[in-house]
Amino acid sequence: MNKILRSLLLIATTLSIIESGTALAADKLETAATKFVESNGIKFSYRILGPQSGTPLVLLQHFTGNMDAWDPAVVNALAKNRPVVVFNNRGVGATNGVVADNIAQMTTDAYAFIQALGYKQVDVLGFSMGGFVAQELAAQHPELVRKVILAGTTHQGGGNHLMKVLGEAFSRANAPDPRDYLFFSQSEAGKQAAAAFLSRVYARKEGRDPESGKEIADAHGKALIVWTSTPDPEFKTLKAIQQPVLVVTGSNDTMLPTEGSITLYKQLKNAQLLLYPDSNHGSIFQYHDSFVNTAEFFLSH
Amino acid sequence: MNKILRSLLLIATTLSIIESGTALAADKLETAATKFVESNGIKFSYRILGPQSGTPLVLLQHFTGNMDAWDPAVVNALAKNRPVVVFNNRGVGATNGVVADNIAQMTTDAYAFIQALGYKQVDVLGFSMGGFVAQELAAQHPELVRKVILAGTTHQGGGNHLMKVLGEAFSRANAPDPRDYLFFSQSEAGKQAAAAFLSRVYARKEGRDPESGKEIADAHGKALIVWTSTPDPEFKTLKAIQQPVLVVTGSNDTMLPTEGSITLYKQLKNAQLLLYPDSNHGSIFQYHDSFVNTAEFFLSH
Repeated sequence: MNKILRSLLLIATTLSIIESGTALAADKLETAATKFVESNGIKFSYRILGPQSGTPLVLLQHFTGNMDAWDPAVVNALAKNRPVVVFNNRGVGATNGVVADNIAQMTTDAYAFIQALGYKQVDVLGFSMGGFVAQELAAQHPELVRKVILAGTTHQGGGNHLMKVLGEAFSRANAPDPRDYLFFSQSEAGKQAAAAFLSRVYARKEGRDPESGKEIADAHGKALIVWTSTPDPEFKTLKAIQQPVLVVTGSNDTMLPTEGSITLYKQLKNAQLLLYPDSNHGSIFQYHDSFVNTAEFFLSH
Repeated sequence: MNKILRSLLLIATTLSIIESGTALAADKLETAATKFVESNGIKFSYRILGPQSGTPLVLLQHFTGNMDAWDPAVVNALAKNRPVVVFNNRGVGATNGVVADNIAQMTTDAYAFIQALGYKQVDVLGFSMGGFVAQELAAQHPELVRKVILAGTTHQGGGNHLMKVLGEAFSRANAPDPRDYLFFSQSEAGKQAAAAFLSRVYARKEGRDPESGKEIADAHGKALIVWTSTPDPEFKTLKAIQQPVLVVTGSNDTMLPTEGSITLYKQLKNAQLLLYPDSNHGSIFQYHDSFVNTAEFFLSH
């Protein structure tokens, strides 16, 4: 390529970087404004990132998690090529209503919330307890849910070690945030990844969601324990899911055992399984770049 | 971006496409020249693609496979960002010598071949029987092997259904190539992927490797059966592998059962597992775009 042409390419590329850079500034979970939409008698708090076109990706959150519990490294990266929506379940963050204590209610609410946004078709990413909602939603609303990502989750009746692991996480001295223990492996690499994750989720200073308290923990705990303890020996929910699914978790998920993800893969009709080394419940945060690379391909093709 | 600028960008981009298009023309497995290098008393036939810089990726081939048995869709795509080397085992294709009938010999040969090319460090992708060689090579030569991809393979003592499945594959009427049955699922999607794969591997017309005959099948069959039937109950080979490994196979690998890949993942210290839906032994060919996307990230980060 000759010199003039190279200069022109450089100018053009630079301008295009400035343009997309400007757009991206409003596309960060850490700075996105919290909005509200009413549906099914609930005023849902939510944030929306990314371009207006493309199949929206709706994120379904874990036990007691609010919008600020999502990892910006995952959310912002996925929002480069599609709208990404995070929201709070009833009674969580700035969403009003009595906290839901069962997965059926959360599924009804998620459906109502998505309808209120006017989306005809969405992809969903369910993390942990949010993965239970994602499964129910995909099974019950095949016309609405196009693709599903199930991260750090399990199938109905898959069992859990919630109480044991939560107890351990909170009983440690000098532990400012239990997620370093619950989401990450305790290797040197896991500890570094945990610290990086925590600095990312605490990056937002203005307009953070209020922290979840005991009322939310009790209700969500009940929902989680009942769903993972209610057998579904014929995997009826999984058999009803025809959509493409990406199942991903860590090598040693101490809360929802890794074997549950292998079962999800085996029992789902059209699932891909991705298991990471040296990792726990939050493998998608520990390996956020790698996960986004695979998730991006899965959602785009 | 204004109109003039957009035009300039278009011109510049077009020229850059023409340039890289020219470079890529010499970087296709289907047209790459076969070269020779002597080492350990063997004159190895090989082909090399891609740029000169970057950690070279050496491909280790399956039972009876020659260089033309590799899928250009995988090889050419991986060669965009690194040198990729394919070669023939002793007695296969245009490589001389008595066909090796054990994995130890193939490992010694692969090491000698890589040394002859002057590489200080390489990545390896072993498919099926080539995956056994990749494991031995990584365990015995940690200084040489940086990263490992194990596709459609198993661990030592992992068992095989070679004879049963080969028999089925060859007994079908009107089956021009047994790989449609051995590498792909028998669903509509699998059959379409098989046809596309076969058209890709037969795209090369000039200078194809000679087909493998009974002598090669007998020797490789012995190597494969002995290795997968010799127990390694403490997984000594796997425990010796400290390098990052990407393990990938199909949901129903009929030749080297999928469970063997799950065991590889569990017993290796630093492995990532990727399992595809509706697929068999050759899942990396059925899902070549998705596999290349994940492999590219794994090798580059």
